Amino acid sequence: MTKPITFYYKNALAEAVGPDHGLDPAELEKLQPRIAQITKLLADQRAGGTLPYRDLPYRTEMAQQVHDLTNRLKGKFENLIVLGIGGSALGNIALQTALNSPTYNLQSARTGPRLFVMDNVDPVQLGSLLDLLQGQLDRTLFNVISKSGQTAETASQFLIIQEMLKNKLPQANLADHIIATTDTQSGTLRKIADALQLTTLEVPAGVGGRFSVLSHVGLFSAAMCNIDIEKLLAGARDMDERVKPSELTHNPAALYAAIQFAFYQKGKNLSVMMPYAFQLKDLCDWYRQLWAESLGKAHDQNGNLVNVGPTPIKALGTTDQHSQVQLYREGPNDKIITFLETETFDRDLTIGPAEDIPELAYLSQQKMSKLINSEKLATEFALIQSQRPCLTVRFPEISPYTVGQFIYMFEVATSYMGELMGINTYDQPAVELGKIATFALMGHPDHQEMSKKIEPFRKIDEKHLA
Amino acid sequence: MTKPITFYYKNALAEAVGPDHGLDPAELEKLQPRIAQITKLLADQRAGGTLPYRDLPYRTEMAQQVHDLTNRLKGKFENLIVLGIGGSALGNIALQTALNSPTYNLQSARTGPRLFVMDNVDPVQLGSLLDLLQGQLDRTLFNVISKSGQTAETASQFLIIQEMLKNKLPQANLADHIIATTDTQSGTLRKIADALQLTTLEVPAGVGGRFSVLSHVGLFSAAMCNIDIEKLLAGARDMDERVKPSELTHNPAALYAAIQFAFYQKGKNLSVMMPYAFQLKDLCDWYRQLWAESLGKAHDQNGNLVNVGPTPIKALGTTDQHSQVQLYREGPNDKIITFLETETFDRDLTIGPAEDIPELAYLSQQKMSKLINSEKLATEFALIQSQRPCLTVRFPEISPYTVGQFIYMFEVATSYMGELMGINTYDQPAVELGKIATFALMGHPDHQEMSKKIEPFRKIDEKHLA
Repeated sequence: MTKPITFYYKNALAEAVGPDHGLDPAELEKLQPRIAQITKLLADQRAGGTLPYRDLPYRTEMAQQVHDLTNRLKGKFENLIVLGIGGSALGNIALQTALNSPTYNLQSARTGPRLFVMDNVDPVQLGSLLDLLQGQLDRTLFNVISKSGQTAETASQFLIIQEMLKNKLPQANLADHIIATTDTQSGTLRKIADALQLTTLEVPAGVGGRFSVLSHVGLFSAAMCNIDIEKLLAGARDMDERVKPSELTHNPAALYAAIQFAFYQKGKNLSVMMPYAFQLKDLCDWYRQLWAESLGKAHDQNGNLVNVGPTPIKALGTTDQHSQVQLYREGPNDKIITFLETETFDRDLTIGPAEDIPELAYLSQQKMSKLINSEKLATEFALIQSQRPCLTVRFPEISPYTVGQFIYMFEVATSYMGELMGINTYDQPAVELGKIATFALMGHPDHQEMSKKIEPFRKIDEKHLA
Repeated sequence: MTKPITFYYKNALAEAVGPDHGLDPAELEKLQPRIAQITKLLADQRAGGTLPYRDLPYRTEMAQQVHDLTNRLKGKFENLIVLGIGGSALGNIALQTALNSPTYNLQSARTGPRLFVMDNVDPVQLGSLLDLLQGQLDRTLFNVISKSGQTAETASQFLIIQEMLKNKLPQANLADHIIATTDTQSGTLRKIADALQLTTLEVPAGVGGRFSVLSHVGLFSAAMCNIDIEKLLAGARDMDERVKPSELTHNPAALYAAIQFAFYQKGKNLSVMMPYAFQLKDLCDWYRQLWAESLGKAHDQNGNLVNVGPTPIKALGTTDQHSQVQLYREGPNDKIITFLETETFDRDLTIGPAEDIPELAYLSQQKMSKLINSEKLATEFALIQSQRPCLTVRFPEISPYTVGQFIYMFEVATSYMGELMGINTYDQPAVELGKIATFALMGHPDHQEMSKKIEPFRKIDEKHLA
């Protein structure tokens, strides 16, 4: 295995931040038997076919299908628009930010199409994109991603672009401009795709959206933008070997979960992820869904009302040193900070000469990579002085191989964490009511009862308006 | 006053979410005497000159100076790069996202230069921007913003671009490419600007970065990108009239603070801001600094150790319905959600026909604005059913005038909240240690003692590495 990411937790221990706010290694040891049980449970679930996300990195036929398709499509398109939301968008965004240039969409010479991931139903946002595509529609490809096809956001976007393509490119075949990523067997989008004879990709059965980035869901847009998806999957497979041991300290996913769980039990219910690399910032949004939707649950596995779940928080170094660190250091000691950092950057800059400016001479001719990594350590040091526990995931470099490791480590950590918390990691029952309420408000004939229930909330009570 | 934003709080009251998690209006009434005191205190501070941010909207000469400058510069530049961090960046970003098109930088026909706000020291991010500017440097303007000029991030960026301009445009006058926004009297950037004879703008005395967006700090980049800064200031002035009453229910800033304070005291220490409009999303980052850095404090005004501060959280509707709402509904009831919504969007889209797709027929030919606003109400309804308190700030439209109101309302709310919490709203003592530690790690000769203190943390202890 080359270039593994590492997980460092010394600065979360009592020896670093004191006994009131740090973990005693004995507390972690106490979790070892439970971790061993969970390790066996997860292995059994996997063997029994009920944990299919674990096997995605081994489904090399998926990568092959993506390659066959992208080889056919590449060079034909200036724009790739992903229509998806939640797990059908956050992974795609995270891979693009991590593995392509921050100015990718602005460059005149790119290695692939511009990528736009539309994960909302804001008419200004989508409208301005459609304006931008005017005159380029024949060079624009849409990838609509939805397991069921009934997600209101994705469905409405699809209906808009379908109509637009029909009106603006009346001669064109819709199948030349739309790839549907959906369930292989059933569902609304499957039916639409079959009727329109669209090329389809697979939302794998039994894999929830938030665990699906290493399937066609995340791989297609990445490959279209020339991200090396084989290396991404290789990274995930190599991490898979590392998260098999039942011994806590030899399994970074189990260890991460155990530490987070121990802190959650001690009342530290806010979990901040703070990368010191612009490229890693959207991995935090991906993690934010994974952690919140998997672990925020009202009931435990026995049906008891528990209302648990750490709140994941996204931050960014150094930017948020000038926004959030005041609170992190002096506010309630209710947070655990996970830094992400990278040993090497794809490129570096040299700070200009400043010998003649006494206050800035210390910066003169130094590397910017040294500055950002120094600021990370400085911030960690300052937090430790305030007894705030800190963890670090260190990337040797930001590459498909290391990002693949990171994704897989955090997916498996989520599985461990869910079991430690005793909840169902893989459902999201609370999302349903809002969907039905939306149906009702949009006049769906099947939801008139709900419509009556919401009616009172449509009216503003002037008494409580300022 | 035309088109005021409104603040709706009924769904945070016990009558909406029940007595365990909602506020009894009597609890708010109990805060009325304190609010009256604070209203007088803030008025006295303002009259005494110690609360200068309150008067920024009336400093019309500032807007005039900005206009004089932008009139001179407009049309000359393809790119405007803001070098700043924290309060010297978040307001600029928020105004641009709110008031210009989401595709502004990508449009071939724009009304102003492309805008890039560089609020980090990531070599990949800055390096890719500098690559993009190759060949356009003569049409690129930099606005470096720092009160002191000693902020490491901004200073290092400045040194890089200064060197680049000297090398790449040896014939050019630096003063034609750099505008410095800084202290009028003293500081490192003031000295540099004077030496280079740069045009300067003002960081107003006594106004902290996070309260400075309505000064030159935020106004210049906005005006360069054709945002109507007069209307922005007019909105702030009209809100100023609304936040003068000492009666709680007639003062939206005092009311917002009182509600947040009452919930904080009841253990709801997470304050989520969730706009249902893509354009408002970066106002949440601005608010996040304002709230966290102002209110996250170790000591109260009497010097007692209190370690207080709500944690502000940024979310986005509808996107985060598929990421965070599961947690918000079922997790610990420790959050108060502030929705932002807009009655009208600058443009709308019609969802395409779907009569032939039974599951999607309810969407057929409906407006997208109706869908996003329905999803907001549906999410609020679902949260209320789970006894989660909800607030709403409603924009009649998203415009300079309404955004100006919003900014001023939340600045003043922060002042009220700080007084309710009994802390110093305007300092940020905890940021200092990290700065000094950075100096030390970068080899600053004045900080060798600190260097010794940090030294042990540079070494990875393999025992706690996985």
